[in-house]
Amino acid sequence: MTLPLTLGDFEREAAERLDAGPHGYYAGGAGDEITLRDNVEAWRRLALRPRVMVDVSTIDRRTTVLGRERPHPLVVAPTAFHRLATDEGERATARAAAAVEALFCLSSLATTGVADAAAEAPHAPRWFQLYVFRDRAVSDEMVAVAAQNGFEALVLTVDLPVLGVRERDVRSGFVVEESTAIPSVRAAGHDGGLNMLEVGQMIDPTLTWPDVERFAAQSGLPVLVKGVLTAEDARRAVEHGAAGVVVSNHGGRQLDTVLSGADALPEVVEEAGDEIDVLVDGGIRRGTDVLKALALGARAVMVGRPILWGLAVGGEAGARRVLELLLAELDVALALAGVPRAADLDASAVQSAPWARGPG
Amino acid sequence: MTLPLTLGDFEREAAERLDAGPHGYYAGGAGDEITLRDNVEAWRRLALRPRVMVDVSTIDRRTTVLGRERPHPLVVAPTAFHRLATDEGERATARAAAAVEALFCLSSLATTGVADAAAEAPHAPRWFQLYVFRDRAVSDEMVAVAAQNGFEALVLTVDLPVLGVRERDVRSGFVVEESTAIPSVRAAGHDGGLNMLEVGQMIDPTLTWPDVERFAAQSGLPVLVKGVLTAEDARRAVEHGAAGVVVSNHGGRQLDTVLSGADALPEVVEEAGDEIDVLVDGGIRRGTDVLKALALGARAVMVGRPILWGLAVGGEAGARRVLELLLAELDVALALAGVPRAADLDASAVQSAPWARGPG
Amino acid sequence: MTLPLTLGDFEREAAERLDAGPHGYYAGGAGDEITLRDNVEAWRRLALRPRVMVDVSTIDRRTTVLGRERPHPLVVAPTAFHRLATDEGERATARAAAAVEALFCLSSLATTGVADAAAEAPHAPRWFQLYVFRDRAVSDEMVAVAAQNGFEALVLTVDLPVLGVRERDVRSGFVVEESTAIPSVRAAGHDGGLNMLEVGQMIDPTLTWPDVERFAAQSGLPVLVKGVLTAEDARRAVEHGAAGVVVSNHGGRQLDTVLSGADALPEVVEEAGDEIDVLVDGGIRRGTDVLKALALGARAVMVGRPILWGLAVGGEAGARRVLELLLAELDVALALAGVPRAADLDASAVQSAPWARGPG
Amino acid sequence: MTLPLTLGDFEREAAERLDAGPHGYYAGGAGDEITLRDNVEAWRRLALRPRVMVDVSTIDRRTTVLGRERPHPLVVAPTAFHRLATDEGERATARAAAAVEALFCLSSLATTGVADAAAEAPHAPRWFQLYVFRDRAVSDEMVAVAAQNGFEALVLTVDLPVLGVRERDVRSGFVVEESTAIPSVRAAGHDGGLNMLEVGQMIDPTLTWPDVERFAAQSGLPVLVKGVLTAEDARRAVEHGAAGVVVSNHGGRQLDTVLSGADALPEVVEEAGDEIDVLVDGGIRRGTDVLKALALGARAVMVGRPILWGLAVGGEAGARRVLELLLAELDVALALAGVPRAADLDASAVQSAPWARGPG
Repeated sequence: MTLPLTLGDFEREAAERLDAGPHGYYAGGAGDEITLRDNVEAWRRLALRPRVMVDVSTIDRRTTVLGRERPHPLVVAPTAFHRLATDEGERATARAAAAVEALFCLSSLATTGVADAAAEAPHAPRWFQLYVFRDRAVSDEMVAVAAQNGFEALVLTVDLPVLGVRERDVRSGFVVEESTAIPSVRAAGHDGGLNMLEVGQMIDPTLTWPDVERFAAQSGLPVLVKGVLTAEDARRAVEHGAAGVVVSNHGGRQLDTVLSGADALPEVVEEAGDEIDVLVDGGIRRGTDVLKALALGARAVMVGRPILWGLAVGGEAGARRVLELLLAELDVALALAGVPRAADLDASAVQSAPWARGPG
Repeated sequence: MTLPLTLGDFEREAAERLDAGPHGYYAGGAGDEITLRDNVEAWRRLALRPRVMVDVSTIDRRTTVLGRERPHPLVVAPTAFHRLATDEGERATARAAAAVEALFCLSSLATTGVADAAAEAPHAPRWFQLYVFRDRAVSDEMVAVAAQNGFEALVLTVDLPVLGVRERDVRSGFVVEESTAIPSVRAAGHDGGLNMLEVGQMIDPTLTWPDVERFAAQSGLPVLVKGVLTAEDARRAVEHGAAGVVVSNHGGRQLDTVLSGADALPEVVEEAGDEIDVLVDGGIRRGTDVLKALALGARAVMVGRPILWGLAVGGEAGARRVLELLLAELDVALALAGVPRAADLDASAVQSAPWARGPG
Repeated sequence: MTLPLTLGDFEREAAERLDAGPHGYYAGGAGDEITLRDNVEAWRRLALRPRVMVDVSTIDRRTTVLGRERPHPLVVAPTAFHRLATDEGERATARAAAAVEALFCLSSLATTGVADAAAEAPHAPRWFQLYVFRDRAVSDEMVAVAAQNGFEALVLTVDLPVLGVRERDVRSGFVVEESTAIPSVRAAGHDGGLNMLEVGQMIDPTLTWPDVERFAAQSGLPVLVKGVLTAEDARRAVEHGAAGVVVSNHGGRQLDTVLSGADALPEVVEEAGDEIDVLVDGGIRRGTDVLKALALGARAVMVGRPILWGLAVGGEAGARRVLELLLAELDVALALAGVPRAADLDASAVQSAPWARGPG
Repeated sequence: MTLPLTLGDFEREAAERLDAGPHGYYAGGAGDEITLRDNVEAWRRLALRPRVMVDVSTIDRRTTVLGRERPHPLVVAPTAFHRLATDEGERATARAAAAVEALFCLSSLATTGVADAAAEAPHAPRWFQLYVFRDRAVSDEMVAVAAQNGFEALVLTVDLPVLGVRERDVRSGFVVEESTAIPSVRAAGHDGGLNMLEVGQMIDPTLTWPDVERFAAQSGLPVLVKGVLTAEDARRAVEHGAAGVVVSNHGGRQLDTVLSGADALPEVVEEAGDEIDVLVDGGIRRGTDVLKALALGARAVMVGRPILWGLAVGGEAGARRVLELLLAELDVALALAGVPRAADLDASAVQSAPWARGPG
């Protein structure tokens, strides 16, 4: 099987392979999908300022996240229901991530159990994404199991106190059938087919900042707060003991017309980048996007939908190929930007793009 | 009957159901329709800055307008000739508004009498929109009847001293047939079919600021001045005893290339928002648009064409569904913006959108 | 015959009626036609700030140009070869202009003689546009005849020292056949068919500022310098005795990517508007465009291509209808901008349009 | 044979004549080709401010490059593999350049030997573009031969330490067949068909600034550093003895989303324009583009792809026609900008284009 050549190719091919319901669920965003599209466009509105005549015979893409050195800045973002994309579900994803030494962040809405996912790549680093359910016992249990199974951090999603307005799912009648039902949801007592509105109603809308401290204490794990888009909330995250924040708009799936990660990143880094780790997600499709995120101060980037396209097109091999393509492109980008050590990147490598002022 | 899922769907479906003449009259704008289109786009040029980790289990969308608390900020804008959209005309609209506790603003060009419209939902709050006719006795009589029938405010339209350049009506030969003729126009002595140029010629082009005081004194009702787009005129409105202003460009139907409500709102609020109520209309299609209007200082928003699409698609039920959709989207938007009380919104929730600088 | 409803309609209908050669000549611009298109777009990048509650029962569109009061600010721009558009050529144009009291500016490249054009509307005001030929005797003779025949001003075109790069004419093989040959060109000794490159070669590329004084002295007429796009040249025009300048890029036909008249107008007005008359042309298609030009300080606007479309569609009646449409739209625009006297317009009525920052 | 009328026509016609592989190689860029497209658009985002009433009867397009007067600012950019475009390869190009007195810069990846290319136009000025191979003996030998054969300068390409991400070549399976193999590559020991990845791997990624001094000393020739996009690197070039820099992004073929030459030029000129020669390439398609480059401080411009289209369409005659078109357009542009001597151009002739703010 020949795998696609770019993440864009993966996206197009996955659109042909997936059924309408799952594809709409994966591909869609909130409302008029302005933010969904802008997540990709925002990286393109940044121009690179490359330096030349630098010895780039050795490329070093290491970064440090949560105090540990990582071979590169790619993190598999937490996304739900991988068995809708490939039969093996998150098992395939876990192996793909491990193969390229990418951090794997397992979703609370995984279609694979926490212990099973861990067992698939026992020596690979992994994080656990947490949705706090109204039935907090369910979340507490998930956190405990994650801690027992070697997950190294909690990624607390904070931008889904209620579900966003997602019309694609309503139009397609998207339901996760029982056969692929989610362990966490089963634990919460839900039975039979599950639509996204029901998922939304399981989430606790009363989550507040002190919960960060509570989950950190309870689990003994560092907590990353995912879904921060403002300097104000970055400050709150610092104050409440977060180990880091993920600048994210939930892939454009929650509140339409919010800022992209690329546009919110600088203010978050300026406010909190010296104190805690800042990551970013949303719209990463090219190695140059990764480089720009690092240049703006992110320590790592999360990659979401492209992994799903990889799974849909080629299962584990597809997801792995997606990550490999990004890494290969990142290497070239570092060389051609004249910054062979990723850790040396800073804001001097990027500027607002002249072409973003409008067409000629 | 299945009603549409979004206001955009209502618009498309109404376009299929309505005859060319009425559709062109409802949908069209002045000149090249630049402002017509921009009314919708202008809200999209505002990005949201959402806050997270706020308890949003209780959403409170109350607002205060003209000194009275309202359960939410939606007002049915005054639009003409509802019997062109649905047989029951404004009766259907009055009931739809009452059902969701939206203020209903009856047009001077209603195809239902003032008393009849009031009787349809006798306990629901209502405003009366006033065109001042050259034959001022007609307007005075309308005001008197409105005051007698429990209308709580006059909405004085000031941006139609003459009719705008509207080519769609000329091209389609749009005429309001006698069978649906308008009580106010009948009172003014007009007989038979009526085209919009004739309507325009009935309007008094000599209306000036002292008329605001005169109508307020004559009716004993607060007067909202509808059609203000500048700080200068907001100041005049305050000076002449207006209870409020509606920042509006008449749905893009009067003078092409004027500013949208979204763009004019900030300067009006800055000038007069502490002294009188500021409302806005034009291009509201999503709950996020309502939230942005409130964040910029509006106390309420008027919704015009979407109500007409609702009437055309589903009569009373359609109009009601339009309002319900906006309210449901507003609830989600408030939750996801992290501002569960609408009254707490301020300008920190919005900023100029990076994507409005141009495509990538 | 039913005449079109807008200038845009005239343009489309003329495109169907004219042969490819003349149509390409009239419609085309230089190079990639960026400036050609921008001439129209630039007016659309200006937003109006309308005032309300002004008595607009009387609209007064008078202006003063070269010290004389004119009933309105429309001037028929000098354009070449009207017999290519309608059999009567400039005779039709002269009568159309006279009918609506528009100043008529006859081109040096008219297909009608100077005296004949004057005789067609002997009591109507008229200007003469001057190309200075290498054979200066030809130009001097034209100036003398114009002065004798009651032309009230010279409009000296200064932006065609050489012909612009116009590919449409080359592609279509456009040639003005002898049968419609131009008196001025005949006087210059040219025989037979004439292509535009030949016209360009007849023009004197050594024209300099002292020529303004020379032509003024020689003719006894005020001289308007047409083709100024910078404050620097506006200053030179003042210094060299020009009675005024026409801010113009020759309809986008000379140097592609130069500024539009709308964009160059403010700096010219600021530099010279208190000392001499400033006019503007290029892209005027709506009454709102005229209003914007006046608000930015122009005393009058020249209308070029739309007159040609009018001639092509309906001869004299068509050209007249084009002017009538603009005047009617201007009246509505003045009323709805709340500035019933055109002479009261100033820059507070316009601002840079928010929508020109980009699409949402 | 009739040759095309504009460089755009050449591009379209060449696309029809060339096979997919070579066409994709010539036409393509890196990644999503954002920079590729922007190279052309960036010149269009500059507006011209033309001066009038200047005697333009004599146009003087001379410039001085590397201390020598040149009749005009056009330089044939170094591009690879001319035999893919026309059988005669670089011999045709050398003659075309000589015919119009354009400097010819021969590529290290020419399909014609250095001595042979020189012999084709022995009295015409020529530069040699240098790729530094990992096998530095190959490069040293090329430099020696170039110096012996009258090449007047070295153009050291510094923006290809590794090959950019170029998907068109992978998709088309582009390979340079042995029959057209490149002398330099043959010298490096490569045998058989050659794809671009192999070319990339031959290049030395350890090139650094002291190499500029080394090549200058070794060859006795002035060295132009090609591929500078920042003021910082312009400074380094000055410090390391470069005779000049070429502001270039390698035709958008190396790192996508870097700045265009047009946008990077001002900062390079400001930093180094008083000390060394600054040239620019990328996206030059019109005489107005050349004028803008000169106005922004470039001493000359390199023209790349259009020459290849010329070769593909008409061999030597085609390449010559491309240069003639640009020169003819430049003459008109100088006349119409009111700057008859190219050497008199400065930044007052250009400004950021209002239309680049967005569509109306």
